[in-house]
Amino acid sequence: MKTQFHNYIIELQDHISSKLEEVDGKGQFHEDSWERPGGGGGRTRVLEDGDVFEKAGVNISAINGSLPEALKKQFKVEEGDFFACGLSIVIHPKNPFAPTVHANWRYFEMYNTEGEIISQWFGGGQDLTPYYFFKDDVIHFHENCKKVCDKHSSDFYNEFKKSCDEYFWNTHRNELRGVGGLFFDYLKETNEFSIEDRFNFVCEVGNNFLESYLPILKIRKHTSFSKENRLWQEIRRGRYVEFNLVHDRGTLFGLKTNGRIESILMSLPPKVQWRYDYSPEIGSKEAELLDILSKPINWLE
Amino acid sequence: MKTQFHNYIIELQDHISSKLEEVDGKGQFHEDSWERPGGGGGRTRVLEDGDVFEKAGVNISAINGSLPEALKKQFKVEEGDFFACGLSIVIHPKNPFAPTVHANWRYFEMYNTEGEIISQWFGGGQDLTPYYFFKDDVIHFHENCKKVCDKHSSDFYNEFKKSCDEYFWNTHRNELRGVGGLFFDYLKETNEFSIEDRFNFVCEVGNNFLESYLPILKIRKHTSFSKENRLWQEIRRGRYVEFNLVHDRGTLFGLKTNGRIESILMSLPPKVQWRYDYSPEIGSKEAELLDILSKPINWLE
Repeated sequence: MKTQFHNYIIELQDHISSKLEEVDGKGQFHEDSWERPGGGGGRTRVLEDGDVFEKAGVNISAINGSLPEALKKQFKVEEGDFFACGLSIVIHPKNPFAPTVHANWRYFEMYNTEGEIISQWFGGGQDLTPYYFFKDDVIHFHENCKKVCDKHSSDFYNEFKKSCDEYFWNTHRNELRGVGGLFFDYLKETNEFSIEDRFNFVCEVGNNFLESYLPILKIRKHTSFSKENRLWQEIRRGRYVEFNLVHDRGTLFGLKTNGRIESILMSLPPKVQWRYDYSPEIGSKEAELLDILSKPINWLE
Repeated sequence: MKTQFHNYIIELQDHISSKLEEVDGKGQFHEDSWERPGGGGGRTRVLEDGDVFEKAGVNISAINGSLPEALKKQFKVEEGDFFACGLSIVIHPKNPFAPTVHANWRYFEMYNTEGEIISQWFGGGQDLTPYYFFKDDVIHFHENCKKVCDKHSSDFYNEFKKSCDEYFWNTHRNELRGVGGLFFDYLKETNEFSIEDRFNFVCEVGNNFLESYLPILKIRKHTSFSKENRLWQEIRRGRYVEFNLVHDRGTLFGLKTNGRIESILMSLPPKVQWRYDYSPEIGSKEAELLDILSKPINWLE
């Protein structure tokens, strides 16, 4: 399974990054291959200052070795090895009317001291962070999320959509990071689902990623915008930074376990502003977004 | 003591904010008074888009009530009340050659269920974060730090300078946030120092703050700079954000205990950039700064 999924994300990284270059028309991905001192490594690809994308990262990593202290604690295991691989995508478009998107799909194996697998699972998800609210965009994204879920279980969409809203709740701001999507973790083998079923589900989500995002981008990428629209985008990007650095489990885990910092922090937006106590005018498009982000919404009902 | 110190910081806030307005010449502080639901409140003053200061905050707060859960844990106390008051300053000048400065002086009292003081202490410090290295500036700042310390104990400067370097070590970047200064906490009554001695020491530091910073600002505030200098400043400000949101105990404590978010996050710089894996040219002024920040330096030896 680990080879199977690793091969899958290698191909998916190639596919997604070449498609994004095509959409951008100007920007090209810069690639860095890196090795992890404890075992394994990754291939980081970042495109900056494109025509459409201000910053886009499409990264894979496959790491292994003895369980870091933080993971031993988390899984209540005294000793053991692990393998983890995954693909992470964060796309920050230039245009303030085009949403930021994030996706991550990962597979984890844990071994006992004899090297036998004692646990294996998939995790991941994808979520959308708009700066201006367009209902059609959000519905398109969620319809795609539901479509891929429904092929595997009629429960998945509701369950993973709810987890996504819970995970991306920015507690100190009392608002959602964005309009959600899917979030799932610890998808293990059960009576109902084999580990191959889990693999097939995650591939279904991964294969659908571009279809869930590119049509939105296509409509919004060339909308004309003002300085004020751009200011709003940069202020909202500040909330994205706050969420990722204060609450995001993946980011904090990476920072505290000597992950490759530049690969982890490629998620941070390129240009960001913090204004003291900034609030948009009542009734404005900016205020509409804040209203949308104040509580989870069932987009497909 | 609590009234005495509270009165002191009220006056010091007035003094420092009026001096900063004078230096800026254009910008004016916007003031927000706020109340804390659990008890107490504060007076936040922020100046934005000045001639010299891009963003400057000079905030006081005096809060009280029953100990929040996080503090009960930290102090291993089951029940009790507290009082805390302090002044916090963060100044982000426009000019990339002028350093950012941060200062904080605070006083804390903890009470048993009968309302008797069971513990009281002072804490605080001040530190400098340059974007370009000018040895004279750093020495001026540290000389002032030493001067105020030496009036109270010949041990203070070395001790609090070392604590400052330790506290502002940005672990995930493996570098210092800036060139340090002073950091002290839990300054309680001892055989050697009464609580009035502690009070007098903290006032000495507070009263000297402008003298330790304004002469540097005066020299640097009108230095001509290029787009590249400004880019470097904005990238380095990103490290400031990373430190404050990932490691700073005060910031995280505030975010996790429902502090007034906008007062806490006034510390974040106004315009910030994250470029993937940005590193300055070898031998450049930018690279010189990174070298300076790679390890603590004894500036006065």
